[in-house]
Amino acid sequence: MSTAHDCIFCKIINGEIPSAKVYEDEEVFAFLDISQVTKGHTLIIPKKHVENIYETTEEVASNLFARVPKIANAIKKAYNPVGINILNNNGTAAGQSVFHIHIHLIPRYDGTDGFDAKWITHNDDYSTSDLADIAQKIATGI
Amino acid sequence: MSTAHDCIFCKIINGEIPSAKVYEDEEVFAFLDISQVTKGHTLIIPKKHVENIYETTEEVASNLFARVPKIANAIKKAYNPVGINILNNNGTAAGQSVFHIHIHLIPRYDGTDGFDAKWITHNDDYSTSDLADIAQKIATGI
Repeated sequence: MSTAHDCIFCKIINGEIPSAKVYEDEEVFAFLDISQVTKGHTLIIPKKHVENIYETTEEVASNLFARVPKIANAIKKAYNPVGINILNNNGTAAGQSVFHIHIHLIPRYDGTDGFDAKWITHNDDYSTSDLADIAQKIATGI
Repeated sequence: MSTAHDCIFCKIINGEIPSAKVYEDEEVFAFLDISQVTKGHTLIIPKKHVENIYETTEEVASNLFARVPKIANAIKKAYNPVGINILNNNGTAAGQSVFHIHIHLIPRYDGTDGFDAKWITHNDDYSTSDLADIAQKIATGI
């Protein structure tokens, strides 16, 4: 199992640092985010140390997200939120602060809780032709 | 393949509604979000119609997220963003507006773009014992 010596999440997986564990199996570990942006805010991480989505293999990504529905359903059963945001931040500029990939499960309650998304749309800034060009530019790199 | 008659994303998959397609295989379809919250903002959806994360099977979740790293890397290659947020909203209160599960890939550029997260932490509101209780309550539902 790949670990990083100074990674706080690897230490949580190994039990060197305590956590409020929600779930564990051979591939993944889930525990409460200590910041509890909303009540029940949970992190799901792969046991293998991977920094971000760019470095994540298909297999690790697959195993990681496969566990999300059952944990989301368990949060729903426990707290009956009105919604849930599932978020993975990559890069400091995108809000990543621990460099071991993690998926946030953030239950939502009443619109006054600790999470919300700034969401500025730009529908009028791009023509159909512009969008086709952007899609093509991305598609050629896959 | 499960489809919903009045679902805009099922119509995009079927070609009834045009889209700026980024990627397609047997399980998933990826295309530009017409709102382009940031440039290159892409949606990845399963071809099978599933409303939200709660209703998503392990297999569909696994196949869906398995494709995320390669599409994230293609966006990085195309536009060299400083970060990328990967977001899935479930429920109107959490920002879901189309009820066919979708994962947003939102490249970030300079902190002045169309996306950001409100992120209010509550580290001081919960004791270690409180966190253990919350984790236990969720864990029993898995």
